[in-house]
Amino acid sequence: MNTVLVLLPAEAVHRQKLEAAGEGCRFIYSTRREADAALIRSADVIIGSPSPELIGASEKLRWLQLDSAGADAYVRPGVLHEKTVLTNATGAYSKAVAEHAFAVTLMLQKKLHLYRDDQRQARWGDRGMVSSLAGATAVVVGLGDIGLYYARLVKAMGAYVIGVKRRGSPLPEGVDELALSPALDSVLPRADVVMSVLPSTPDTIHLYTPERFDLMKDSALFINCGRGNAVAGEVLYDALTSHKIAAAAIDVAESEPLPPDSPLWGLEDLVITPHVSGNYHLPDILERVVDIASGNLRAFLRGEPLENLVDFSTGYRK
Amino acid sequence: MNTVLVLLPAEAVHRQKLEAAGEGCRFIYSTRREADAALIRSADVIIGSPSPELIGASEKLRWLQLDSAGADAYVRPGVLHEKTVLTNATGAYSKAVAEHAFAVTLMLQKKLHLYRDDQRQARWGDRGMVSSLAGATAVVVGLGDIGLYYARLVKAMGAYVIGVKRRGSPLPEGVDELALSPALDSVLPRADVVMSVLPSTPDTIHLYTPERFDLMKDSALFINCGRGNAVAGEVLYDALTSHKIAAAAIDVAESEPLPPDSPLWGLEDLVITPHVSGNYHLPDILERVVDIASGNLRAFLRGEPLENLVDFSTGYRK
Repeated sequence: MNTVLVLLPAEAVHRQKLEAAGEGCRFIYSTRREADAALIRSADVIIGSPSPELIGASEKLRWLQLDSAGADAYVRPGVLHEKTVLTNATGAYSKAVAEHAFAVTLMLQKKLHLYRDDQRQARWGDRGMVSSLAGATAVVVGLGDIGLYYARLVKAMGAYVIGVKRRGSPLPEGVDELALSPALDSVLPRADVVMSVLPSTPDTIHLYTPERFDLMKDSALFINCGRGNAVAGEVLYDALTSHKIAAAAIDVAESEPLPPDSPLWGLEDLVITPHVSGNYHLPDILERVVDIASGNLRAFLRGEPLENLVDFSTGYRK
Repeated sequence: MNTVLVLLPAEAVHRQKLEAAGEGCRFIYSTRREADAALIRSADVIIGSPSPELIGASEKLRWLQLDSAGADAYVRPGVLHEKTVLTNATGAYSKAVAEHAFAVTLMLQKKLHLYRDDQRQARWGDRGMVSSLAGATAVVVGLGDIGLYYARLVKAMGAYVIGVKRRGSPLPEGVDELALSPALDSVLPRADVVMSVLPSTPDTIHLYTPERFDLMKDSALFINCGRGNAVAGEVLYDALTSHKIAAAAIDVAESEPLPPDSPLWGLEDLVITPHVSGNYHLPDILERVVDIASGNLRAFLRGEPLENLVDFSTGYRK
């Protein structure tokens, strides 16, 4: 009998759905925090995201269904046994992360972060010109589900969207122009908004160099909702304080939590959110994760191919 | 010869357009701040918004083209001579005000105001659930150009839009359902977002009573981008502190600037911006104002009917 360890905030409705898909399995419900090494190593299947260091390449673990899109912590050598199948929850977070990125884009354009600061000083004063997505050019770096969702949102506001991706493809809905990754530097100078939602891979670590910020307009807005190591903290700090770009928003940091003494906290033109865009903060995220996990559990028990298999070379969906 | 006093931040391109429309007129350029009573009373036509108290019902003034949408300060008895024609700039601000209202809607939904406060304390911490416009119900109170523009934006994000207006009409684009003003109380309980963009008229002053906030969901967001006197400061304060609604954003106040000792400043769940959504903060606003004024100037000189005539009973376009 397969033991399925579920590390999700699963309520009755979610348990029913999982157990219907996993007929004949033994289900154990716990949390990431409470699941110790013994429990983790007793499982044939884990649904959720156990602490990577407690898995210890468990031979018993045949399949790990993450509840996150990013899988970089699990593809490192020594975390999973070579026979463990790894799937992620790509797709479950698209709406939440894209809407968050869209909301901070508008916040920066309308200077709402500055007005919030003024409000805290009881200051009623004009902060000058704002900008609009209507007629603006948005460069979306990373055209997975999140990037595509964001593209459709900014396009509905009137933006011209350039999508940057690794592999050529037909033009997706919501995208006006495609550029392959090596052409990034040729499209950055055109961007009014750069929205980056890249996985953490050897190719994307510190992708945003000082030289790339030099290429951007000094009026550009930079938004990072992918992985924090796409831009080094000090590079972002310099880009903002030397006015290479106008403002930025990050939902991720190179080291999380961002240390209390980081100089980034105090930057007026930087909006920081604490990696919250992709949590279970919209009710339908958990629904989607349970749907993905249930579908995969059914397939797993039948020996059929799983959805959302992780590519160990990128840490993201194959 | 007609003397046309222009009180706009008009650059060469704008002056050319106005002077081409007003052939044979004498143009004087000044600012609201610098235009004194003597100058104002020398004009046959004013384009812009002179201080109302300096007009003194000037008999010479045949036509006043405001550069604002709201005209309530000019329809009061004693401000304009009964023969002065009054037109406003309705339409010029639709995009700017609607986008601002949309941006604060998303800011409240994603708790970005709270995360900004946390950032100022170098605090990396989760603020819990957020909401989405996808599947939400937005009640737009006041369906002029701004309300309709906002309706289209929230509908593009997936909201169901109920528009509230004074007069019946076919269903406009971006609106799913219409309610006439007397039915306001029947739609407020359904709203996840109430966005109000009403002119100041005897019917709209203090429209949002404590009872109407009682009708709203405790999860509702309230946004006022119309006139500040639609809701009394203390009523909004009570609605928020007694958790009748979840959060609010105002770009207008009953008394502007909002006094430094107003208790509204300190409310965590209230976002205050200083009546900036409708200023000349997007470059195309001034273009639109000049277009409206030029078209009307041409018509005025030909004795043809003007656009955007103000209804003295409402202070807004007829």
